[in-house]
Amino acid sequence: MSGRGDGLVTIPARSGKATFVRKGDRIRVINTHGAQVVDTWAFNREELTEFMSMEHTRAHALTVFPTTGTTMRTNKRRPILTFLEDTSGGIHDTLIAACDRYRYELLGCAGYHDNCTDNLRKGLQELGLTPPETPSPLNLFMNIPLTPKGGISFEAPVSTPGSYVTLRAEMDLVIAFSACPQDVLPINGVDCKPTEAHFLPLGA
Amino acid sequence: MSGRGDGLVTIPARSGKATFVRKGDRIRVINTHGAQVVDTWAFNREELTEFMSMEHTRAHALTVFPTTGTTMRTNKRRPILTFLEDTSGGIHDTLIAACDRYRYELLGCAGYHDNCTDNLRKGLQELGLTPPETPSPLNLFMNIPLTPKGGISFEAPVSTPGSYVTLRAEMDLVIAFSACPQDVLPINGVDCKPTEAHFLPLGA
Repeated sequence: MSGRGDGLVTIPARSGKATFVRKGDRIRVINTHGAQVVDTWAFNREELTEFMSMEHTRAHALTVFPTTGTTMRTNKRRPILTFLEDTSGGIHDTLIAACDRYRYELLGCAGYHDNCTDNLRKGLQELGLTPPETPSPLNLFMNIPLTPKGGISFEAPVSTPGSYVTLRAEMDLVIAFSACPQDVLPINGVDCKPTEAHFLPLGA
Repeated sequence: MSGRGDGLVTIPARSGKATFVRKGDRIRVINTHGAQVVDTWAFNREELTEFMSMEHTRAHALTVFPTTGTTMRTNKRRPILTFLEDTSGGIHDTLIAACDRYRYELLGCAGYHDNCTDNLRKGLQELGLTPPETPSPLNLFMNIPLTPKGGISFEAPVSTPGSYVTLRAEMDLVIAFSACPQDVLPINGVDCKPTEAHFLPLGA
């Protein structure tokens, strides 16, 4: 693992990183520079085909905006992660797919562009794992406001430097993060400059 | 195919049905009795791992409520279905997972309960196909209102008997429907009595 002596692990800018978390342990995801979206996935460590699912979570949490107190569920409707703390303003997204090569092709980018879908794969690959598919991610710090009629838009995060969420693992799991490399739309801040973020494994 | 001489095909109550649609052809999905949710999936006929994706569609349609004029996209962000007509009131859901055995277990149902996830599988099976996964469905006629703060609830449809949507295929595809067997929550009407629905294949 890359990181500092205090256990802090870097999610490098435009890149992915994954780690194991035991049931009951906590992990803190830190928006180090304040405006970085962190796409997040979680998989049952024993069976990767069971994973955190936005569409199943919404049916039980009865919200599209998870924050302190919300329990995320798997595609088997079991609790997998719970938001214990959220100092970031409580704006996270469950509606939007991970970016991918097709996204950047449509945005007119020439050549290869880093993307969260590939970052999920690479992050898990470092642990010797392969994602069974690309689940719709929990987009931490991502600001997709909703209008009363259901319209959505892509806006800069409301989070601040050093703000964070603390999540508790509800099963033994592997969690994967991508510091979103989106630099065409202002989803990572109005400067469109993706940055690193960090996570901090914590005990129970 | 089950159906009538005029080409109308029955989606039996609590059950699934699938069919092929050629690029440019249209298909009408009819809420025959007015309060029946129809979970809908579409797959690229040539490559089933490319399929209609709610999370990719939302990123481009910029709405959570598709209706006349909305183009649905695949997980490769290509157009797959376009809403040409909608006489049902324009209330459809893209947020909620297909129901499954786990849903009914959590709702306290004893024994096997019909569910949309199994119906997708059975519908495709009649065509000799197997879904690569269970994509989050387009829930036609399903009424999941949103509060300004992102809260959601499960309500009865606003559609009326005989109302319909007409969809155009944007690629050669296989489309699968499930007449949702939910009879615990009032999502198929306040009587909680799931019914049949119908579809009508139309030319270009």
